[in-house]
Amino acid sequence: MSLARVQHFSISLDGFGTGEGLSVEAPFGHAGEKLHEWMLATRWGRSLFGRTGGTRGLDDTFLRLFESGIGAEIMGAGKFGPPGWHEDPQWRGWWGANPPFHTPVYVLTHHPRPSIEMEGGTSFHFIDASPADALEAARKAAAGQDVRIGGGPSIIRDFIAAGLIDHMHIVVVPILLGRGVRLWDKLEGLENAFEIEATTSPSGVIHLMFSRRDT
Amino acid sequence: MSLARVQHFSISLDGFGTGEGLSVEAPFGHAGEKLHEWMLATRWGRSLFGRTGGTRGLDDTFLRLFESGIGAEIMGAGKFGPPGWHEDPQWRGWWGANPPFHTPVYVLTHHPRPSIEMEGGTSFHFIDASPADALEAARKAAAGQDVRIGGGPSIIRDFIAAGLIDHMHIVVVPILLGRGVRLWDKLEGLENAFEIEATTSPSGVIHLMFSRRDT
Repeated sequence: MSLARVQHFSISLDGFGTGEGLSVEAPFGHAGEKLHEWMLATRWGRSLFGRTGGTRGLDDTFLRLFESGIGAEIMGAGKFGPPGWHEDPQWRGWWGANPPFHTPVYVLTHHPRPSIEMEGGTSFHFIDASPADALEAARKAAAGQDVRIGGGPSIIRDFIAAGLIDHMHIVVVPILLGRGVRLWDKLEGLENAFEIEATTSPSGVIHLMFSRRDT
Repeated sequence: MSLARVQHFSISLDGFGTGEGLSVEAPFGHAGEKLHEWMLATRWGRSLFGRTGGTRGLDDTFLRLFESGIGAEIMGAGKFGPPGWHEDPQWRGWWGANPPFHTPVYVLTHHPRPSIEMEGGTSFHFIDASPADALEAARKAAAGQDVRIGGGPSIIRDFIAAGLIDHMHIVVVPILLGRGVRLWDKLEGLENAFEIEATTSPSGVIHLMFSRRDT
């Protein structure tokens, strides 16, 4: 069965999945790299930037699941580019010619445009669709594999609220951002739908795993 | 040196330290006992209600520090009683004739009233004061011992914002309350002032310890 999964999505202790004031210079706004330093310290995280070295412990272990069993991703418009990217016909995402997805990626946007084929197997498809319809499209493209719900926080929250998430790995970083976009708003009683397991890492982050009870 | 300490204060994953709709029948509003079930499962928690049995693991270990080195408590009006308690001259708190504090307790309220002596060494003193002034009064009463900042969430937040907390033990319960009073609002950058350590318990809760860097 093809699952909808959230992978290593980072939030602050006060629940923000991104900061305030997003721009092309500040993809996470005032949060800067603070939500992702734990990733950049790992061997996997460093390899994304062509670097060697890095930790090989628990954080790296979680990150290495990134491509495992994933056949497509769904992301929000706010992840694909800075505010206003839809007005730039040349914008092709943050990730350069060979993005790290290596699958079809469905970008939820109110401004659809033609699909883009990138190097390394990534293709971007722009759709104006409900979470359920987007998941159906991504599942077809995934050909039996799982679909990653890639964020940002608003999109993950929409998929949770629609009851569409099967497994979710959230990483709580011990910082307080104070402002930005919250992941957890209006999700009262989520613990009734998910088994929740927590483990701490020597890096200081807390890994939370949510497994839907009926799958 | 007399420290200002927060002990085992429970919040939900979405950061609420109490629920919505507080009343004499529902001291934590719609949260019910959900934030405190982990305490009620411990040997220490059960002993508060004259019961035997209960767990003796990590959660119980933390709770047994409750009285250790504490000479006074400061609490908010919202912890002392339900909304409107100040209109009832007979209200003497939630805890019966022998409250579990066994020290002077300073209740921050805009409606001061005469002090009350309870059994077992607890006395309630009602003051309309700033966090700094309340801490000064409680420190005198504590005679060199530490002062517990007992909650609720608004009072703890006020003391954090005023830079008055030395050590803080926060327990994150894996539930989403969705509404209520948040602990973390407007505390951006708190990690700059505190070393933060996290450990998970087999009960499912996450213990967070904040130690002020300059103490």
